[in-house]
Amino acid sequence: MAKQEDLFKNVVSHAKEYGYIFASSEIYDGLSAVYDYGQNGAELKKNIKDYWWKSMVQLHQNIVGIDSAILMHPKTWKASGHVDAFTDPLIDNKDSKKRYRADVLVEDYAEKLNIKALKEITKAKKRFGEAFNEEEFVTTNPRVVGYLADRKRILERLAKSLTDEDLDDVKALIEELEIADPDTGSRNWTEVRQFNLMFGTKMGASAETSTDLYLRPETAQGIFVNFANVQKTGRMKIPFGIAQIGKAFRNEIVARQFIFRMREFEQMEMQFFVRPGDEMKWYEHWKEQRIKWHYSLNLGQENYRFHDHEKLAHYANAAADIEFDFPFGFKELEGIHSRTDFDLKAHEEFSGKKLRFFDPELNENYVPYVIETSIGLDRMFLSVLSSSLKEETLEDGSTRTVLKLPAILAPTKAAILPLVKKDGLPEMAQKIIDDLKWDFKVQYDEKDAIGRRYRRQDAAGTPLCITVDHDSLEDNSVTVRYRDTMEQKRVAISELPKLINAEVDFKHWMKD
Amino acid sequence: MAKQEDLFKNVVSHAKEYGYIFASSEIYDGLSAVYDYGQNGAELKKNIKDYWWKSMVQLHQNIVGIDSAILMHPKTWKASGHVDAFTDPLIDNKDSKKRYRADVLVEDYAEKLNIKALKEITKAKKRFGEAFNEEEFVTTNPRVVGYLADRKRILERLAKSLTDEDLDDVKALIEELEIADPDTGSRNWTEVRQFNLMFGTKMGASAETSTDLYLRPETAQGIFVNFANVQKTGRMKIPFGIAQIGKAFRNEIVARQFIFRMREFEQMEMQFFVRPGDEMKWYEHWKEQRIKWHYSLNLGQENYRFHDHEKLAHYANAAADIEFDFPFGFKELEGIHSRTDFDLKAHEEFSGKKLRFFDPELNENYVPYVIETSIGLDRMFLSVLSSSLKEETLEDGSTRTVLKLPAILAPTKAAILPLVKKDGLPEMAQKIIDDLKWDFKVQYDEKDAIGRRYRRQDAAGTPLCITVDHDSLEDNSVTVRYRDTMEQKRVAISELPKLINAEVDFKHWMKD
Repeated sequence: MAKQEDLFKNVVSHAKEYGYIFASSEIYDGLSAVYDYGQNGAELKKNIKDYWWKSMVQLHQNIVGIDSAILMHPKTWKASGHVDAFTDPLIDNKDSKKRYRADVLVEDYAEKLNIKALKEITKAKKRFGEAFNEEEFVTTNPRVVGYLADRKRILERLAKSLTDEDLDDVKALIEELEIADPDTGSRNWTEVRQFNLMFGTKMGASAETSTDLYLRPETAQGIFVNFANVQKTGRMKIPFGIAQIGKAFRNEIVARQFIFRMREFEQMEMQFFVRPGDEMKWYEHWKEQRIKWHYSLNLGQENYRFHDHEKLAHYANAAADIEFDFPFGFKELEGIHSRTDFDLKAHEEFSGKKLRFFDPELNENYVPYVIETSIGLDRMFLSVLSSSLKEETLEDGSTRTVLKLPAILAPTKAAILPLVKKDGLPEMAQKIIDDLKWDFKVQYDEKDAIGRRYRRQDAAGTPLCITVDHDSLEDNSVTVRYRDTMEQKRVAISELPKLINAEVDFKHWMKD
Repeated sequence: MAKQEDLFKNVVSHAKEYGYIFASSEIYDGLSAVYDYGQNGAELKKNIKDYWWKSMVQLHQNIVGIDSAILMHPKTWKASGHVDAFTDPLIDNKDSKKRYRADVLVEDYAEKLNIKALKEITKAKKRFGEAFNEEEFVTTNPRVVGYLADRKRILERLAKSLTDEDLDDVKALIEELEIADPDTGSRNWTEVRQFNLMFGTKMGASAETSTDLYLRPETAQGIFVNFANVQKTGRMKIPFGIAQIGKAFRNEIVARQFIFRMREFEQMEMQFFVRPGDEMKWYEHWKEQRIKWHYSLNLGQENYRFHDHEKLAHYANAAADIEFDFPFGFKELEGIHSRTDFDLKAHEEFSGKKLRFFDPELNENYVPYVIETSIGLDRMFLSVLSSSLKEETLEDGSTRTVLKLPAILAPTKAAILPLVKKDGLPEMAQKIIDDLKWDFKVQYDEKDAIGRRYRRQDAAGTPLCITVDHDSLEDNSVTVRYRDTMEQKRVAISELPKLINAEVDFKHWMKD
């Protein structure tokens, strides 16, 4: 655990040091749970977007992309259920004036019972040594059994209260457990109330004519309201998909874990419209397709797992997450949801417009069913960054920090380095750049000894270093060094485009 | 003028019919001055972004890109001056409760005088026929001279009142001219007041702890607050630039002209940091570079012109627009501004952080000067779309609608068309697609006669049609038809990647 925390801290500080992620408005001490992408982060993020867009839209004849606005007609969010149900249960402490998520207070209490049980286990393990039987101990030691039973009871009661929307019982639970304000110890609580997570704003100038709007909390509804326009003007036939990449906003009370849960974030979503009754076939299809896509980046298949939802959202009849092994454990990276016809039907009802497809094979009109694939782009970014960052011990005992990003996602594909800052080597390096820059993002670097420059490019995630030396002036060749293996080879300058392309070719990555 | 209005209407309806632009939340009757990009619009917009990003970031070793958040610390907007000065002068009608831009009411009044003068000229032209001397008439006819003089006087007084921030005089002007509410005819007006154009929102849950935020009204400040982080972690040396593409929001009272002035829009900006005193040299440099970039798209150099600002914003010491000939006349497409050290100095003052560069050549610390290049992405989209849409009369007297988009920006690069829906031609077409789709966005279409499919692809803006016929099965060749010339030629299937690439190659476009 301590090691994991260290790793996470390393990721955060590395992300800043190498221009991947800065706190938003950092000179003003930042804005909580909002981040900016720096010069390398912007490129990595863009490359992730392109990789997804190409895989989903360019490769599929029956998937098209759209780009809908963040501001939408407010009825959209009545229809989708967000106005009424996109809420967190909050409680205020009357003394400290601080506000908390009531469910998180209870969960934190339950987690403390778990920690107490673990401490007993650790103590007993030390005492009994080799003879210790953990399984038996957990089921017989009265203290441990008590802690775990209490924990279970509390979590079950919380889940039931939330499901039943019985907020009074959540309050009662907090009082029974004598949960205090973590900051001040006060137990002087208000009632528990539901708080909507959407950011609000007003459009228009005067009080009489202004409209209350929301910043969209998800991009999906931008696809649903455009369903009929895209289907008709794009002459789409079921099954077909609409894909979109865009920003969404959630006024999270407790936003944590760096860019994993942000108040402003970006989604890559695809809604796939199918014939009612076919949805389970397509649900399985997209589960398989999406995990394959993640595997294609070679970040390690052991870092991914499926988590099937047992409790389904009101609009879904099947749902699974692709979880990734983040520095803080396995967490949701992408969701694949069978959303039924819930959204389109709701928009039919609220708008009075028909959102149907005439199926010539069935000679029938219907509201399509929907399979959704939805990635958090920033989470994807964090998964790539955190699993690529390695500390390696080299043969000579020294260590190097290397960011083993998939080459197709790396911000800079190659660094062009003159061995020394004279004798025409910088000019030759520049000539190589002038040739390569049309097709690849490349970088020039002449500062410091060559070994230091290699290390710097390793840490920044650049897959190739191309060194121009005095021999280059004679033989028109350069030394290419590979980031991951540190292998070096001599290559003719005329061969460089082909060599770089082999590392970053889209077809090669997707097919591997 | 009538012709221009028709052209504009054609652009708007064509944009919808071919999946370029839909009204936002159209099923709920739209959201005023907000639009969604459809399946072709999303691709065209993406291609414009890529063309700009590649030209600015990929080709320049001393320009890097970032991606900063829409939500920023509110002090940012105090420092930038937006909280105090980003306003429009508004007036309410007390009877109708409608709100108007006071300056627009006066401008509309002045425009009516102009129209009256034009009517007199038209009448006289009819009366006098060939003998009519317009120049003389305009300077001697008492009515026309009166109208134009009144118009000039009114506009000059309005300009002076606004410059002096004398809102009482704007109100007085409205009363003197007896301007009435255009909807109701009432002259019962309130005072004129300044109204801030930023959208506001609140972050955080409780009244005590929530923070008032703004949706950024421009992307530039996201670059300025990140100046020091990017300069240090990117080891940038002056002169250098930071580029960014992103959304911005302005609560415009009167938003007009389709996607030209939207409440939610996107900017492509680059801030170039230079040594104080060098700014005029770089200002001229970027003016030249930017107009060349626009010319590279071959939309017609006559459609662009520079407009130098006579009145400068408080932060600028030189400014010019690149204007484009939109269907409603020449209007701003891109701004090139010499912003001095205004922004960085203001952020130094408000944040207490040093935003300086140590110049090793001068052995001196200074706050850099800034040259900004700023394009409205949606305006750029409209410029490309409107100037590409053509009605052509063909040799046989028939007409065709063709969208002559630059091939590098076209949503679909090639349509693959089996001549008939049988005999293995669809399968062969699919095989061609499976080969091309890795590198190019291509589309399959088998519906309707081949001529109709050509017309459809012409109207959608697809530069190439590739037709698979019965001979193809024998000779592994296809017919390639060019959208703009309608020329056709027979090409081996194996030559297709090279042929398509010649049309969309970045280097080719930028160098032409």
